[in-house]
Amino acid sequence: MEKTNIAIVGLGTVGSGVARLLLDHGDRTARHAGRTMWLRKAVVRDIEKAKQRMTLPDGVLTDSLDDVINDEEITVVAQLIGGLEPARTIMLKLMESGKDIVTANKALLAEHGPELFDRARQLGRSIAFEASVAGGIPIIANISQCLSANQLQSLEGILNGTSNFIVSQMDEKGSDYADVVAEAQRLGYAEADPTMDVDGTDAAQKLAILAHLAFGATINWNDIPRIGIDGLDPADLRYARELGYRIKLLAVANLTEAGLELSVAPTLLKIGTPLAEVRNAFNAIRAVGDAVGPVFYHGLGAGQMPTASAVVADLIDTAVGRTKLTFQTLEYFCGENPPRAIQRDAASLKGRFYLRLLVANHPGTLGAIANVLSDHSISIASVIQHETDTSESTDRMVPLVIMTHEATEGAASEATNKLEGLSVVSGSVVRLRVKD
Amino acid sequence: MEKTNIAIVGLGTVGSGVARLLLDHGDRTARHAGRTMWLRKAVVRDIEKAKQRMTLPDGVLTDSLDDVINDEEITVVAQLIGGLEPARTIMLKLMESGKDIVTANKALLAEHGPELFDRARQLGRSIAFEASVAGGIPIIANISQCLSANQLQSLEGILNGTSNFIVSQMDEKGSDYADVVAEAQRLGYAEADPTMDVDGTDAAQKLAILAHLAFGATINWNDIPRIGIDGLDPADLRYARELGYRIKLLAVANLTEAGLELSVAPTLLKIGTPLAEVRNAFNAIRAVGDAVGPVFYHGLGAGQMPTASAVVADLIDTAVGRTKLTFQTLEYFCGENPPRAIQRDAASLKGRFYLRLLVANHPGTLGAIANVLSDHSISIASVIQHETDTSESTDRMVPLVIMTHEATEGAASEATNKLEGLSVVSGSVVRLRVKD
Repeated sequence: MEKTNIAIVGLGTVGSGVARLLLDHGDRTARHAGRTMWLRKAVVRDIEKAKQRMTLPDGVLTDSLDDVINDEEITVVAQLIGGLEPARTIMLKLMESGKDIVTANKALLAEHGPELFDRARQLGRSIAFEASVAGGIPIIANISQCLSANQLQSLEGILNGTSNFIVSQMDEKGSDYADVVAEAQRLGYAEADPTMDVDGTDAAQKLAILAHLAFGATINWNDIPRIGIDGLDPADLRYARELGYRIKLLAVANLTEAGLELSVAPTLLKIGTPLAEVRNAFNAIRAVGDAVGPVFYHGLGAGQMPTASAVVADLIDTAVGRTKLTFQTLEYFCGENPPRAIQRDAASLKGRFYLRLLVANHPGTLGAIANVLSDHSISIASVIQHETDTSESTDRMVPLVIMTHEATEGAASEATNKLEGLSVVSGSVVRLRVKD
Repeated sequence: MEKTNIAIVGLGTVGSGVARLLLDHGDRTARHAGRTMWLRKAVVRDIEKAKQRMTLPDGVLTDSLDDVINDEEITVVAQLIGGLEPARTIMLKLMESGKDIVTANKALLAEHGPELFDRARQLGRSIAFEASVAGGIPIIANISQCLSANQLQSLEGILNGTSNFIVSQMDEKGSDYADVVAEAQRLGYAEADPTMDVDGTDAAQKLAILAHLAFGATINWNDIPRIGIDGLDPADLRYARELGYRIKLLAVANLTEAGLELSVAPTLLKIGTPLAEVRNAFNAIRAVGDAVGPVFYHGLGAGQMPTASAVVADLIDTAVGRTKLTFQTLEYFCGENPPRAIQRDAASLKGRFYLRLLVANHPGTLGAIANVLSDHSISIASVIQHETDTSESTDRMVPLVIMTHEATEGAASEATNKLEGLSVVSGSVVRLRVKD
């Protein structure tokens, strides 16, 4: 049987999962690849630390990247180190020495995709990156190949498992954001510094990659308007539920007549719809194509073995030769492809909105607020104002929640500013988008 | 730009959808294939009838298969005629004249897969069949390639859109089976003779294909135990709902220690779980892999454009060369692969059961029934017996519904026979499986 020699660079959580699949399930990978998938080298920074993590066959573990670069028999490398540098330089070196790459590093691709993919094309190499988005859900292959007969019209995704875990727990237990983050860190669902996960950066980077595949748009992830879940108040989760919705950190790419609308934001989703019911560390994506209609994918978005599953599928595809064909054909991140216009005029986008205000509990308040909305052509779909204890002074401020009918983002934004200027409204208005 | 010449054999619903995608969206298919996907011939039985259906460019329409067979420039053929013959003979002829095949004909593959795939291998040709299972859901590619790092442990699917439409409508409207079938026929969701859809044949054929891909099992679809929805009573849908379940026609392939368990049967699924919420003509599949965990797919299982989407994706994969690599590697339906043992001793399978009995409304009835169950080590999880009109005679028979805890199929079957022999039980006992 033919043999493909493989190296892993970086033996962290995912890397050791990949090593385990290759070492423990050689029969399985050989059956799917039609050849032996042989782990020849695993490059780590600290050999002693790696030995504590897992036992590898003699001669596999090394701390020298040159052991891979100078070994012509190694043709495919799973590069599984995070961050931008030295990951970028290592990837370039590996490709220059003739290796095809499999990676899970979405930040690197979101930041340096065009450079790395151009270089790969020049060198006749390929980069596979299924594991970079949505872990165990094979969304890259599905968009690039399986749905290739379609013009995709929209992608909506829950792409960050940490945020979804936090929001699910806040929703189910009514806990505060800070308490749930502490619990998520204890359980290993959130990093010591979870900023990139909870502020929407990670979801925006993944969305930039998916939107490129689906719409040919070359997007700087940093240009995607994004709001994280770090400012989310449990009160909004409660009111949303009362209205029949859950709040999720939703990444959206939507093809409109004006161009491609992109956003990452906490969004109200109707209870019972598939995206609203995605719990804890799961991810999900709903794609709509003009031929296939809606297709929904749900699976584990992170974790050692789901991510390793995606990496090993890519290693097999690369060894079989499918990756090279796809890579050559699709010209990922090729500067010569005319990028699709990105919708930058957010003001004209339409949607429904959830507003929460702190208002004076006296006659005329609701009228004043309704007038502002009406002035901006925003009509009210539903209102929640709970009765307050009548023994308390009517001077007390009380929460008021309004769900609007469809309105433009511009009108909603202007109306929000006006509402914040009213004397009957205290502090700032919480405004969230709603998807039915 | 390179060009791949394509023929379509059979210009029915799906065939004309494929023609439309190729003719109207040449830019799109070219972008995904890296070459022009050129529709050169469409073979039909009746040219005049085809002309009424759609307008094709001059010279494309023909009623002679030889126009395709003798045209060496046609390299890929979408063979979109149903049934076993002449479909089988045509496919063999096309492959013998050097064409790669794309097909949606699951019955043909379920019946003659080994012969057709062996012949394709001998001839160096490929057969792509994404459209044969679950229409727009790309489950073939996902199992064969995307989840290739996994040993799949189970597949559960709603694979027949007609049955699911009928069951959903019975559930939502409380209508009788016959009335809903008539409506489904009127709306085009059911054929004039819907037997193959509603008796579980179609789902069993699809399950045989998926189980082969997932578990390497070569299965005669006719050996899969199957119960259709044609005997379903609206009363059972009502009781199921009262217990917190919906009934769906579920196809299951489950890898157990004793082998591969396969079945198609109406099954109670807990309300709120993804499979239970699959409505109308949608299909869905839940796959569990040992690395990736659970992955859930949901989309349109039939219809012109969803199925055409799958066919055109296969045409692109074939033109690019991916199909040939996959086909050569995976050795689909290759007689030389040791087939996985199929679990034939259904009696030892464990599960929960729903029982509905018509019982005498007098003291001692419930005790007699409980004793029979207890004698077979079956414990009762819940019971529904509604109060009946006390003015009526106590001799009247009343329905009694029992949900059991886990028991073996063998025990449940024996207990059912015993219950049917009790003097307090009238007629036959309805027994359905339950999945939590």
